[in-house]
Order: sequence, then C-alpha cells, then structure tokens
Amino acid sequence: MDKSPYEILFEPVKIGPKTTKNRFYQVPHCNGMGHRWPKSMAEMRKIKAEGGWGVVCTEECEIHASSDLSSGALMRLWDDSDIPTHARMVENVQSHDALAGIQLVHNGYSTSNRFSRIPPIAPSARSARYDDPLQARAMDKQDIKNLRQWHRQAAQRAITAGYDIIYVYAGHNLTLLMHFLSSRYNQRTDEYGGSLKNRTRLIKEILEETKEIADDKAAVAFRFAVDEGMGKGGISACEEGRDVVEMLADLPDLWDVNISDWSNDSLTSRFGAEGHQETYIDFVKKVTNKPVVGVGRFTSPDTMVSQIRRGVLDLIGAARPSIADPFLPHKIKQDRMDEIRECIGCNICTSGDMLSVPIRCTQNPTMGEEWRKGWHPEDIEPAGSDDNFLIVGGGPAGLECALALAKRGYDVVVAEKNDVTGGRLVREATLPGFAEWRRVIDHRTYMLSQKANVNIYLNSELGAQDIMDYGFSHVVVATGSQWRTDGVGRKNHFPIEISDVALFSPEQIMDGILPSGPVVIFDDDHYYLASALAELLHDKGVEVTFVTPSDKVASWTENTLEQHMIQAGLLKRGIRIICNHSIAAVKQGKFILKNTYTGMEEVIEGRGFIPVTSRLSNDGLYQTLMIGQDELEGSGIKSVTLIGDSFMPSTIAAAVYHGHLFARQVDNPKDLWTEFKRENI
Amino acid sequence: MDKSPYEILFEPVKIGPKTTKNRFYQVPHCNGMGHRWPKSMAEMRKIKAEGGWGVVCTEECEIHASSDLSSGALMRLWDDSDIPTHARMVENVQSHDALAGIQLVHNGYSTSNRFSRIPPIAPSARSARYDDPLQARAMDKQDIKNLRQWHRQAAQRAITAGYDIIYVYAGHNLTLLMHFLSSRYNQRTDEYGGSLKNRTRLIKEILEETKEIADDKAAVAFRFAVDEGMGKGGISACEEGRDVVEMLADLPDLWDVNISDWSNDSLTSRFGAEGHQETYIDFVKKVTNKPVVGVGRFTSPDTMVSQIRRGVLDLIGAARPSIADPFLPHKIKQDRMDEIRECIGCNICTSGDMLSVPIRCTQNPTMGEEWRKGWHPEDIEPAGSDDNFLIVGGGPAGLECALALAKRGYDVVVAEKNDVTGGRLVREATLPGFAEWRRVIDHRTYMLSQKANVNIYLNSELGAQDIMDYGFSHVVVATGSQWRTDGVGRKNHFPIEISDVALFSPEQIMDGILPSGPVVIFDDDHYYLASALAELLHDKGVEVTFVTPSDKVASWTENTLEQHMIQAGLLKRGIRIICNHSIAAVKQGKFILKNTYTGMEEVIEGRGFIPVTSRLSNDGLYQTLMIGQDELEGSGIKSVTLIGDSFMPSTIAAAVYHGHLFARQVDNPKDLWTEFKRENI
Repeated sequence: MDKSPYEILFEPVKIGPKTTKNRFYQVPHCNGMGHRWPKSMAEMRKIKAEGGWGVVCTEECEIHASSDLSSGALMRLWDDSDIPTHARMVENVQSHDALAGIQLVHNGYSTSNRFSRIPPIAPSARSARYDDPLQARAMDKQDIKNLRQWHRQAAQRAITAGYDIIYVYAGHNLTLLMHFLSSRYNQRTDEYGGSLKNRTRLIKEILEETKEIADDKAAVAFRFAVDEGMGKGGISACEEGRDVVEMLADLPDLWDVNISDWSNDSLTSRFGAEGHQETYIDFVKKVTNKPVVGVGRFTSPDTMVSQIRRGVLDLIGAARPSIADPFLPHKIKQDRMDEIRECIGCNICTSGDMLSVPIRCTQNPTMGEEWRKGWHPEDIEPAGSDDNFLIVGGGPAGLECALALAKRGYDVVVAEKNDVTGGRLVREATLPGFAEWRRVIDHRTYMLSQKANVNIYLNSELGAQDIMDYGFSHVVVATGSQWRTDGVGRKNHFPIEISDVALFSPEQIMDGILPSGPVVIFDDDHYYLASALAELLHDKGVEVTFVTPSDKVASWTENTLEQHMIQAGLLKRGIRIICNHSIAAVKQGKFILKNTYTGMEEVIEGRGFIPVTSRLSNDGLYQTLMIGQDELEGSGIKSVTLIGDSFMPSTIAAAVYHGHLFARQVDNPKDLWTEFKRENI
Repeated sequence: MDKSPYEILFEPVKIGPKTTKNRFYQVPHCNGMGHRWPKSMAEMRKIKAEGGWGVVCTEECEIHASSDLSSGALMRLWDDSDIPTHARMVENVQSHDALAGIQLVHNGYSTSNRFSRIPPIAPSARSARYDDPLQARAMDKQDIKNLRQWHRQAAQRAITAGYDIIYVYAGHNLTLLMHFLSSRYNQRTDEYGGSLKNRTRLIKEILEETKEIADDKAAVAFRFAVDEGMGKGGISACEEGRDVVEMLADLPDLWDVNISDWSNDSLTSRFGAEGHQETYIDFVKKVTNKPVVGVGRFTSPDTMVSQIRRGVLDLIGAARPSIADPFLPHKIKQDRMDEIRECIGCNICTSGDMLSVPIRCTQNPTMGEEWRKGWHPEDIEPAGSDDNFLIVGGGPAGLECALALAKRGYDVVVAEKNDVTGGRLVREATLPGFAEWRRVIDHRTYMLSQKANVNIYLNSELGAQDIMDYGFSHVVVATGSQWRTDGVGRKNHFPIEISDVALFSPEQIMDGILPSGPVVIFDDDHYYLASALAELLHDKGVEVTFVTPSDKVASWTENTLEQHMIQAGLLKRGIRIICNHSIAAVKQGKFILKNTYTGMEEVIEGRGFIPVTSRLSNDGLYQTLMIGQDELEGSGIKSVTLIGDSFMPSTIAAAVYHGHLFARQVDNPKDLWTEFKRENI
C-alpha cells in the first residue's frame, strides 16, 4: 500500500471519542429488512464490515411507537425488547473492526402510525403526509418534552446495544426535526417557531442531550439536508442550510450532509452522475472543524481521493455503492480496482424499502440473501464435480451464471450469437440516461476475461443439434426475451387488431429506426422502457403520444424514486400523456382507446404504434432440446436449464439472480427456489 | 328460544363429516394480521367463536412460497414451521365449540413473490397482476403436478393443525384455480385448457385430492365466484358459473359461493345493500345437495331467516358483520337483537389488509385489539372509582366514550349542543349512499338509553364556566372538527388567496346550500367526502369540476375497495376531473391550478369554490379550560381530556377508538396510547 495513490482513503479519522480505521463510511440506508427480518439485516451489515467499511450504520430507527412506519420494515427502538436485535447488529459490525452507527428518528407527520394507532405529531397541525385520512396534531410543550425524553431513552438503549455512533437526523424531508426547521411545516409562535434560531432550538437541544447520554461512550452524528432543491420555499445551501451548519458548527461530532428529499439524495443514474451533491455540500467543511461525510454514489477511487484532497469530504459516504459491492474498500486496498462491482444507479435497491420486502441489487445478487441463503458476495462453494457447462446466451443471466460457475472452478463455455455480449443491455444501455447500466456487462466480461476456465464465443448461434454434438455435462439456456407487438399485456388478454399503421417493436426503436409520423406509445409495462423511448423519439423530433392504463407514467418507478421525474420530463417536453386508457384496437390510422374506469371508447390518431406491453421468452431452443430428451441423455447431457428472461421475463436484477442461483445450487439436490431460511414470529 | 322466529338459525347443519352447531358461519376474511401478528389473529378468531359463530375460518393461507403475497400479512402453510400458528388458531376456535376452517390458496400470477423471488406461475404466460416488472410463466405438466402436491401437503398440514374444514378456493379473480377456469387467463391447448370441462379439470383434481387427504377427518369446502359482474368476458351465473356448479355439484362437502372480484363481493354500503348477491347465487342450492353458504353483509335476523326459509342459503356467511359484532349470534339467541352493532359497510376493515396492518372497525373499537390490548367487545373492567364524567359533545367519540364508561359502571352525563346526537354523522349520513353510517350513532344512542347511569342533554352548549361550576370528576371534550376553507391541506402549507368567488365549506353543502354556478371542488383530502359532494351537487343540477393533486379521485378509497367505482361514477356523470393539480389561488372567477409534476400553471373558471382539504379541531373550549387550570383544580375536576376529531381530525373509526380507549384506561396509570403488546421476531 505504501505507494498507492489511494492510501489516503485508508487513513484513520477521529469521530468524537471514536476512531474509524479508514474513510469508507456506509451511511444509514434502508433495506426492507429491519425489525421484520432482523437476522437478515444483521448479516448483511456484517458482510459490509467484512468488506472493509470503516463505519457501518443501520437504517433509520424509530424511537417511539408514535413514529410507526408500518408496514415498513425499518428498525425500531420503541422499548427494551428491541435491544437484542441491535446488539446482534453491533456485534456483527464490530467483529470486523468497524464502527457501528445507528440513525435515531422520529418521523412526525410522515408516519400514519397504522399499527400503533397513535395520532401523529408535527410542529404545527396539518394533514398527515400520505393520503391516510388523518391529520397530525400540533405538539404542545409537554409533547416537546416527551419527544426529547424518547430521544434520550432511545440513545440510552443504543448505548446499551453497544453502538459507536448515534445519529440525530434532520433530513430527507421525512423527520420531525427537519419539520421543526422548515418554515413550511413550523408555523409555531413560541420559542420553537419563527426565527431560524428558534426553529433550530429543538435540534440543538436534542444534539446536546444525545451527547450527554453518549457521554464519550459514542460519537454523535448529525445527518442534515443542506438543500431541498426547491429554491425559495425550502431550505437551501446558500441560505438557511448554511446558517444551520454555522449555528451548530462544532456541536455534533460528525456532519453527515446530503440533499433532500430521498429521491434527490439517491438520484438514479438516469437523472444524475457520480458526485452530483458536491456543489451543495462543499461549504460544510469550511464551516465546521468536525469531520464531514457525504455521498454521491462514489464508485471511482480517483473521485474519492479527489473529494478528500480537495477538502470536500473527510469520509466517503456510500449507501448504493456498498450494496453493489460490499467489498469495495478491500478491493481498493488490495489494488483490485478492476474487480469492483460498480453501482449502476438503477435504484432497484430502494424498491425493497418501498415495498417492505428485503433489498435486492442488480449488480450484487447476494444482497439480502446473506443470512437467508447463506450467500457471500465474494466467496462461493468450490465445484462439486468435474462437470462442464455450456451457456447459450451472453446476457446478464448467462454472464452471471458463467462467472459464478467459473469462480466455483467449473469449466464454462459461453456461446453468444451476436458479435458482443450484453443481451438486452446492448440495446437498453443506449437509451438516454442508461449508459451506466452497461456496468452489469462490463464487470462480468472483465471478470470472465481473467478466468482460465471460461471461454466466450461470439457470433455463435447454436442449434439443438450443435448442443447435443458438443455434449457438455450441463446446458444452460439464457436466450432472453423479446417484446410482444400484439398489444397483449396486463389489460389486453388477447392480441388486438392492428392494421393500417406502422408497427414498431421497442427493439426496433432502440436499434435506431426512426418512425416518420406521429407515434403512439402504449405503456402497459409500467417500468422505465416506454418513457425512455418516448424521450428518445421526442428528442429526435418525432411527435409522441403516451397512452397508459395506469393513472400515471411509469407507475412502478415510484419504487425507484423516479416516477415524478419521469412524468415531469415527459410533460416538460410537451409529450401528450393519456392515462387511464388501454388501446383496444388500431385500424385505419385510428387508435381505439378504452377508459379503464368506464369502458368508454375514445379515438386518437397516429401513424406509428409502439406497444410496450409484455414480453415473450425466447425459449424455442430450450423447447427443441426438450422434445429430443432421449437423444439428450444419449449425448451425455445431464441437465438443460432455462434461466433469466428466457425462463420468465423480468428485471435485469432477476436475471442476474437467476444466473447466480443456478450456479450456486446446480450440484445441490435441494429445491432451487425454495431453499431459504425464514424469520417467523 | 322455543318460540323464537330465529330458532331456525340455531339448527345444526351437517358439513361432510362435521356438524356445525348453528347456521352462523364466519367465512374466510383477511385481517392484516395473519402470519405477521399470529397471536393477535388467533385471539380475534377466538372471540368470534365465543360470540357464537358456529364456524370460524382463517383468511387465505398461502400453500407455497411461490404464492407469496409479501409484504401482505396473510396466513401461510409454506412448511411445517407454520403449523404451530394454525394449531393455536384451531384450539382457540374449538375451545368455544365452533368448527375451524382454513382457506388454502395459490394466488398464481396475482403474487409478485417479492420476498421469495420465485417466478410466478399461471395457466398461460402473461404479465404479473400488479405493476411489478415481472411476468408469470406458463405452467408445464410438472408444474401442475407440483401444484397438486403442494395443495395436498398443505391439506395434510391443515389436518395436523386440527382444522375441521379445508377450503379449495377459486374466487375473487385472485387465485390460480380461478385463472385456470377463466378463458381470459387460460389459453392452454392441453387437457387443462379449451373446453370448460378441461378448464375445470385442475379444480376437480384438487377437490378430489383434498377429500382424499381429509379422509373424513375434515370437510372440504369449495369457495367459488359464480359471477364476475362483467358480462360476456367473464364467468357469469347464467352460463359458466352455473355450469361449474352443475359439474362439481356434490363433490365438495360445502359450497361457499360469492361474486368476484373482492370489491364486488365486499361491496360498501355506498354501492350496495344487504343481500345484494342473492340474484347471483340463488341457483346454487337448486343444483347441489350439499349445504351452501353465502354472504351479503347480513345484520338483520329477519333477512337471515328469510334466506334460509326461501332456500337461498343453508348457512349465513359473514365477514364484515362478524367484525362489527363478534357476538351477533349470541345476541340473536338471547333475544338481544337491538344490541347488535351492525356493520355500516364502510370497509375501513379492508384497509388493514390493503395496508398490511391489523384490521380495525368503525363500529367495533376492540377489533384487532383483542390480544394486543386484551380488549373484549362485550366485557369491560368495572369502574375503578366513584368518579363521574361529563362528556361535552355527542358525536361518535363522545357517545362511544359514554357507552364504555357507562358499561364500566361510571355515572356519565353527555352534553350535546345540537338538538340531536351524532356529531359529524348528522351531516355525513345524509350524503348519497351513506345512510347506513348512521348506525354508529343509532347503536350507541339505543344502548345508552338502556343505561340508568347515563344522561344525555341535547341543546346544551357548555362554556368553560358552566363546566367548572358542575364540578364533575372528569371532563371529556369531544367537540369535533370543522373543514378549513382556506385551501390548506397536503399541498398548500399556507392559506391561499380566495377572492371574487362564492366560497362554501363542505358543511354548508351538506346542510343543503345549493351553489348557483359552476363550482370547483378541490380534493386534497383523498377520502370519500369530496367525491360524495361532487355527486350530490351534480345530481342536483350543479356543474362540477373536480380538482385534485392526486393522480386519481379519492385515492385512499383504494383501501376500501371503492376507488374505481367512485371515479367511474364521477366520469359517468360527466363531471370534469382534473388530476395532478393543486389550486394555488382563486381570484376574479379564475382558479389558478398548479401541476404537481411540473409546477406549471393553468387557469379554469368557476363561480363557486368548495375546498375539501383538511380540518381544524374544535378545541377552543378545551383550550379555555386549560388556561384556567388553577381554577379547574379548585372546582374538583381531576382531568380534562380532548378526544376524537377535536384532538386530531381523522376517521370515524379513529374517533370511536379514541373514545373507547379513554374509557378503558382512564383509571389506569399506564400510557393511554403506547400500552399494547407486540409480536416481535
């Protein structure tokens, strides 16, 4: 390490009474496991510590039943019965010489307390955040005293559990302390409202009291959103955001700074690049003497070093990069930078929290499976036999399968019919904003290139007979899927009439075909593709109408924090959006739309039609092989398995997971899919 | 009971090898507790059995991890580790001489398997039901064999747990067996597709196999949706629905018949009346010799008797009526019909399942609290002192509080300023479709009229001085809330400019004021009121424009299964709906709308304005009393407590709960809100 330009990243940093061994800091992040899957959560955090992160934090942790995010699966410290879960997490993290941090939170009016049934609280009376039919009541003086007491009690429990760092949290437009700070939410006329000093009072009190409880047994961090990205109506880095940092400058032991809300902080690669928060948060280090941590989806060691050298940050914060590669710090330390599985910024990880189920990751198929399946992101069981493998198809599923098999020591051949590997990503990564998604392919292609036991053959389309002639022990078919062009999807059960119109598949558009007339895109898929095609075509000058049976554009992207940005993007371009309608038929240049509520029909016109509805598995090769099953056995082939989109069209994350799953369990007699541990009540 | 006209309801009925003691049958219903809160679930079911239901069933129970409704809190029988939860439920139900039933289910493409990550299955390949970016794959022969095996294994586990009735379930457009039956979903060309006989094959096989496993140790019920209410495209009672019953006539031991989907089956009182399913299901008994159970939100004993006498049903099925009053059968048996807490058909109960949190009920504040708080719907702790109570306000919170206190034996006076009790319901029950909601008031008013220790004074508006002069031990202020008319709600943090327009509060409209011109209703509340006002005014000839920042009308009513009906109702009336816009100002007859995605402004015109945004607590009396706290103590008043909407505006269910909560815990030193047991992992 002596001469490494990255040595600076491995310097210890003092955080109050504690010292982190290096600058790699896993900031608090949700994971959909929390109190609901506590062993799964604790094991996932342990792997991060093992991978070299100097600090590993929890997600947000509710300090009281009046901050009840049910059915969300966050952490809790409602009472002492929650301590054992935390103690397990702490022990796991500290066992690898990392510091364990906990983010205490009261979410105020952002919780509807659906389980506890406690009336939510807020600085001033108002509607609850979500559409639950209830309001939050204005806190009186006793409520403020109670809140401070709850926070002290939670801090005490955190100390009991053994945490090294305790957070006070005013960020993401989600927490009661941020609501006190904000003049939108705080309309109080007492000493907690009015001037910024008054609005900061509660934060100051709670910081002081947390330090008192911590009593040098733990550091106290303050996570603070310096900017809301909304100009005048909100907190901004050039006004109140900066003023708060100046007021509290050296009170916390650590500043963890970011921008609000969560979708701005965890911006996808479609909407922002590595380090995008720098211009907002770079003033903080100039104002405080305490260490500063910030995030920016950092995966490049050079960028990290630059952040430190230029005095932007003291600690390289990461949530998503630590999910995609828990061993990122170790890989830098060991000069294995090329092996880093870089986050692609797709935010499939946030969907776990949004849907209250365990986190997953496109790049890291072991994420969320550490305890449940006993999977490790770097280690894998050695080969159980001398079998060899033919993988047909070099897309995400095929490449991940090849890589995991190769790591196990199996001999693997990948046959790819095209002149490049990548499968669907060859096309999709060309969409505007999707370039980073190529990392799924690039990482695997590089890793495979380092393996002596793998051969990838391009331009190699195989037939069933070829496969039988080769006689590999196992054949894995990973031949992907293709978009239907007959309108069948969630709304249409049967192919619709499509005539007198120029019909294009999504693949054709991605391949560069430019329709000449006004086109209608029919999105019954509800993920990213239809909106990306609409942007692409519009920006090339094609008039686009976007029709969807949903009440919004790209509805599922709410789970990746993108939906409002996607719909705003289409609206700002002037793309016509027709929600709540399916397309029942296209004939003579007329599109027959059907209202999803009433069934009433409406007609619009257009010359081109691009249905983005559902996909067909490319399972022809597999089916042919299956027909000749007897012959297969004769040729020495022990198994033929369909994986990824050719088994079931889904996300890239699901394809990678399936490829990995197969490779892990190919020589394990247990059921491929159902072999996992549960955490029952 | 000898001469009771209701004796017929208490006749035993043979169900296969089992006999139920009476005709009261709690059909399977979700409750948001399931495997996530198993003790809570089991105690709730126990109370039903105690209340006299002859049969008490579970909610749907997933037979395999490939039917994973996570994060939903349903029941599971994925493996043997789930059996103890079921055994507890069975023991609880049988301890009160009731039969315990279990509804086994595989949900096929209706599950996205967000936890198990198993690719969903369906008769034919298709998109998954919800907007998750994945598809369901077509089942091959091995998959069908597997499914049958999973069902057999689950049935065996159900026998081990001790169930008396095991369900095969093809209903609600949710289950794989119904998808096999439906020509929309089943496009197979093998012996499981094509003719109705083929499409019914799997159901028949599974029924036969379940009977084989049950082996006279349990009865086998078939829950079947005879009609989908969609005419030609679906199963209908006059065609395929009837054909299926004829084909399988005497195969199951019991027919549990209803209509699909869930929102049609569990129709709210806004959209349907008691017994609304009769015309669909009345053919069934003519076709089969086996007993038939059906539902219809039955709360009237006479209607129940009529169903039996007229040969419509053998068993009176109930989900919601058994939630609103678990002791309904006992009350009929004991000739206490007037004491039945009749379901109001609001479907606040379904919101528990929809949001994956424990069930609640507007009429029955103990629902979901049986284990957690140890609450019983009929029994309550005797008074802990000779204290007396003054309750100011005779709305839902005040009346429930009075009733619970009176049951405990306390002396209670209710002072109501109006000439009738009812609070907000006096107005709201006059809205079109809301008449049954009056039952909240009528039940409590009747029950209170039977109590010697309660006096209700109408036309009695009290001031702070009056209250201090009376000197009750405890004063409960339940003075409700009123709608704001300044536009403040979720979107507007501050009052908006409103000038040159006729401004109406929702209360004024409910009081009968009829605006003269085109009116704009601004719904930033998202529950039922704004849409009900729109209907009311439109039907009286007023032109209405409905503006909401949400992407749909009455978004929260998705949780009460009404949203699509409400929006369709407005559309069919021709009411103009503008989604995704807030109202930023109203001046000179112009409404300045602001797009929630882009912030772009748009202008519409109107003469009247009805904001339905948020409410202000009527806490003036309470605040005045609090200012004179010293004087209070001198007057012998030990406590003054604000409850219901005057504490925090919310649902009627929340107001009733708060009134009940106060009454339960007034002499208990523990914290009012946080005293509950938890079910941690």
